[in-house]
Amino acid sequence: MKIQKIAIIGKYPSIEKSKDIYAQLIELVNHLGDKKFDLFIESKTQQQINLSKYNSIDLKDIGAQVDIAIIVGGDGTMLGVARSLVYSDIPLIGIKQGRFGFLADLTTDNMFQAIDSILEGQYICDNRMLLEAKIVRENKTIYESFALNDIVVKSGLRLIELEVAIDNQFVHTQRSDGIIVSTPTGTTAYALSAGGPILHPKLDAISIVPISPHTLSNRPIAVSGDSAIIINIIQMDEAYVSIDGQIKFPLDLRDTIEIKKASQSISILHPRDYCYFDMLRTKLNWG
Amino acid sequence: MKIQKIAIIGKYPSIEKSKDIYAQLIELVNHLGDKKFDLFIESKTQQQINLSKYNSIDLKDIGAQVDIAIIVGGDGTMLGVARSLVYSDIPLIGIKQGRFGFLADLTTDNMFQAIDSILEGQYICDNRMLLEAKIVRENKTIYESFALNDIVVKSGLRLIELEVAIDNQFVHTQRSDGIIVSTPTGTTAYALSAGGPILHPKLDAISIVPISPHTLSNRPIAVSGDSAIIINIIQMDEAYVSIDGQIKFPLDLRDTIEIKKASQSISILHPRDYCYFDMLRTKLNWG
Amino acid sequence: MKIQKIAIIGKYPSIEKSKDIYAQLIELVNHLGDKKFDLFIESKTQQQINLSKYNSIDLKDIGAQVDIAIIVGGDGTMLGVARSLVYSDIPLIGIKQGRFGFLADLTTDNMFQAIDSILEGQYICDNRMLLEAKIVRENKTIYESFALNDIVVKSGLRLIELEVAIDNQFVHTQRSDGIIVSTPTGTTAYALSAGGPILHPKLDAISIVPISPHTLSNRPIAVSGDSAIIINIIQMDEAYVSIDGQIKFPLDLRDTIEIKKASQSISILHPRDYCYFDMLRTKLNWG
Amino acid sequence: MKIQKIAIIGKYPSIEKSKDIYAQLIELVNHLGDKKFDLFIESKTQQQINLSKYNSIDLKDIGAQVDIAIIVGGDGTMLGVARSLVYSDIPLIGIKQGRFGFLADLTTDNMFQAIDSILEGQYICDNRMLLEAKIVRENKTIYESFALNDIVVKSGLRLIELEVAIDNQFVHTQRSDGIIVSTPTGTTAYALSAGGPILHPKLDAISIVPISPHTLSNRPIAVSGDSAIIINIIQMDEAYVSIDGQIKFPLDLRDTIEIKKASQSISILHPRDYCYFDMLRTKLNWG
Repeated sequence: MKIQKIAIIGKYPSIEKSKDIYAQLIELVNHLGDKKFDLFIESKTQQQINLSKYNSIDLKDIGAQVDIAIIVGGDGTMLGVARSLVYSDIPLIGIKQGRFGFLADLTTDNMFQAIDSILEGQYICDNRMLLEAKIVRENKTIYESFALNDIVVKSGLRLIELEVAIDNQFVHTQRSDGIIVSTPTGTTAYALSAGGPILHPKLDAISIVPISPHTLSNRPIAVSGDSAIIINIIQMDEAYVSIDGQIKFPLDLRDTIEIKKASQSISILHPRDYCYFDMLRTKLNWG
Repeated sequence: MKIQKIAIIGKYPSIEKSKDIYAQLIELVNHLGDKKFDLFIESKTQQQINLSKYNSIDLKDIGAQVDIAIIVGGDGTMLGVARSLVYSDIPLIGIKQGRFGFLADLTTDNMFQAIDSILEGQYICDNRMLLEAKIVRENKTIYESFALNDIVVKSGLRLIELEVAIDNQFVHTQRSDGIIVSTPTGTTAYALSAGGPILHPKLDAISIVPISPHTLSNRPIAVSGDSAIIINIIQMDEAYVSIDGQIKFPLDLRDTIEIKKASQSISILHPRDYCYFDMLRTKLNWG
Repeated sequence: MKIQKIAIIGKYPSIEKSKDIYAQLIELVNHLGDKKFDLFIESKTQQQINLSKYNSIDLKDIGAQVDIAIIVGGDGTMLGVARSLVYSDIPLIGIKQGRFGFLADLTTDNMFQAIDSILEGQYICDNRMLLEAKIVRENKTIYESFALNDIVVKSGLRLIELEVAIDNQFVHTQRSDGIIVSTPTGTTAYALSAGGPILHPKLDAISIVPISPHTLSNRPIAVSGDSAIIINIIQMDEAYVSIDGQIKFPLDLRDTIEIKKASQSISILHPRDYCYFDMLRTKLNWG
Repeated sequence: MKIQKIAIIGKYPSIEKSKDIYAQLIELVNHLGDKKFDLFIESKTQQQINLSKYNSIDLKDIGAQVDIAIIVGGDGTMLGVARSLVYSDIPLIGIKQGRFGFLADLTTDNMFQAIDSILEGQYICDNRMLLEAKIVRENKTIYESFALNDIVVKSGLRLIELEVAIDNQFVHTQRSDGIIVSTPTGTTAYALSAGGPILHPKLDAISIVPISPHTLSNRPIAVSGDSAIIINIIQMDEAYVSIDGQIKFPLDLRDTIEIKKASQSISILHPRDYCYFDMLRTKLNWG
């Protein structure tokens, strides 16, 4: 892959404490501009930094125009951008201020050297599975979304009762606060807090983690990445689906949630010395 | 205690599948009526069963008029009645259809013999701690409630950030789905699903259980029953307090939740052969 | 597969309470003998039942002589036989007295009909991964074994300190009671008790579960079935490797334990209506 | 309490990496000697540091001779000394090299100022419950010990089957790797690794935590500090009792383990600004 055209995407909305990020973002833009790359500033980011000598570009057009997208923000920003760029085929680089994230593994402290090496071709390309959720109500798909981390069915105040089927086989009826269906990437996010295992990103698997289940033997299950997971709501007061913890869609007793691996995936470029376990060890304070 | 005046409280609203319960409730009323007890049918229950030869009584007046209240319903009904009768000092007997509950330990199958023995004075009196929650907003108490099981501070979609203090000592700032503050009674309910320990009801202690905490070492803590627990909301999108899983009160970023043991408690009468561990063993399918 | 030659293996040693099993085993042998199959009674089993009109056969010779092995015993017996028959390529059928097991999914109650159907070709063939452990001391392999459930490195009295590497990448140094490396099959055995997830048997993955780890964020990890797992002992008082909870091999500070998927696997034949999730639901008392 | 006579106890045996500790121990002894306290060096510690101008004293005589014991070592050393000094009534101060411990909350870095303040009477006295274990075989007590952290019944290779009774009430028969009976102090040690809750040291309670139980609903239970806990071994291959993780006593199928709160307790002196939750927050990396 020859990298020439680069999109730059910042975290928005710009909140007070992100001012620093924008200073660093501007430094990065100027650094890359000086190196003769063609830069495209995502338009909402451009509104923040106003570097009019560079092109602006809408998020939705990035896929068709650039070779790579650099995201300055953190894991949350990465998740949102990843879902937006599903249909493009461009890899992402993530930069975070302060401590690095699970996905955004460069930090603003060391970014120039790391970015330069990656852009010169010194990278590891890390392919991450996406999930695809469909909410079907009375035979009509009323909502669809991709997820890089997880698709969560969750109750409001009281327990929800769910029926889970995998590959058309009935698994169980579960009373709980909800259920997390997670990619390997998502297993270090919400699923981990809820008691789920870590799945290595190279594992073609989907993790299903109950949230505070009434039956104590309702434990997390990991199934093959090719599994089709169907969740029916048996009883609820109030419930919703959440996508990567960022989008919330209200559910109804008539709804069926269908989840499977997306045919698309997302690539993240890491420096050559990246190692998944090193990242885990640091993020989880192992030893 | 001489038992002469008995209140009878049924589960309401009457849903289709409760029809059976009402048949059994009527049988119970007639059984006790024949035994020359003075019966008072709680007025909403009376609307369902229409046994006009017995007195009706409003739930709020029960405390002043009767010696004991018999509740036909299940743990949920027990929780609601217990909170309503906090200021009275009358003991409760709980009867449940089907499998017995954690609180309602008589079943409709064996109720006559068990009830008769209890009313003849053959009982164990089981005193259960109540908690008291106050929500304070800008120095004004905007909500107050008792709880027999638990007081839960819980987020909507995203993580909530909470600060917990016990006896004016800062404990931690926690990012999680929320926190459960539970009586020993409540430790076999929601707190157990969320990973909390079981506290024996004789233990004068309060259990504090984080719900899906971001930091994996944020583990359940049990503190003395005399502890004052203060929860401040540091960051939230949407959050609420729930009382025994039955009442929901919306929270605001300005709110402080103050929790302590109530000076009142609730008594439940059990048959003489009642044993807490027998109950646990059956309810939790031990061996 | 044409099934003509059948080995019959019973649980041994015959303990008092297994007498019943032997009665049922004899019934089974006679039932199959009448059906004109060629029967081979495993020699230690033969010592128990003394049906001299049938051939005896040593466990080690079974692979070369028969088409299928029927095991009457339970999951423990299945594990032992599976390890013994790794190099043969014959499928197993498991029969258990009382409640069915995770592996031995026929029960003596319904065995004739189920066995007959399977032997007529009405079966589902369920291929299960095996692991292979090597213990290396000063560059020499001092012990080797297959495992159908798990390979466990475990301490005696005090904490053990282990260093784990996966595919030559350092994962972490862990202080714990030990570590379980499990096949998907083994994830419903010891690994589940220790807090591990359930991995569906079709998932080509290995589960790594710490036992009572000192660092609370040391959570179970599942990695690809092709991973090579190396465990080094950093500090110990007394430790051992256990294979399927049945074999115990003492360890030394100099030892390295190397674990990977075996090239061989084991096939279990189930009745046509077998469903993994049905089995889980029953064994784990879901709902 | 007037403090004049001070015992000094170091960690032994002196291993290579403890050399540093001894240098600091000697500094401490000289510092206190200069302050005109009467110092008594525990005799094994004296063998290491050879400060013959101070008195030597055997560990067993410390209780009768001194006002206070200062322990330089860490939590492990504190546990051992605490058990040895049960019958004396002198308080302990714990000093640890590097990061402070759960019990030894002074560090060698800041020790002079902290010790001086405490010796001047500026301290918080923290009373900690001890447990008392008796192993009874054929009606004879064959072993007795106190524990400051925990009494653990644990299996060797295979599952152990235990029967637990509390206050003469049968709790359950449990198949597991063993069971931890812990003081509040011990709940941040092994019990925490095994999934138990944290009990505040002011709580008069005993925590009972199963180790990798076969039945997933066998959850940790906390009972009143006045409870008598009886554990009978139903089935075992090989098992032992361990005391504070430091003493190991082999068990037999005939053995009964009786555990209750000791009438004695142990006092630890902390600096005035000591706060249990501060300590927890640091040790457990909260936030």
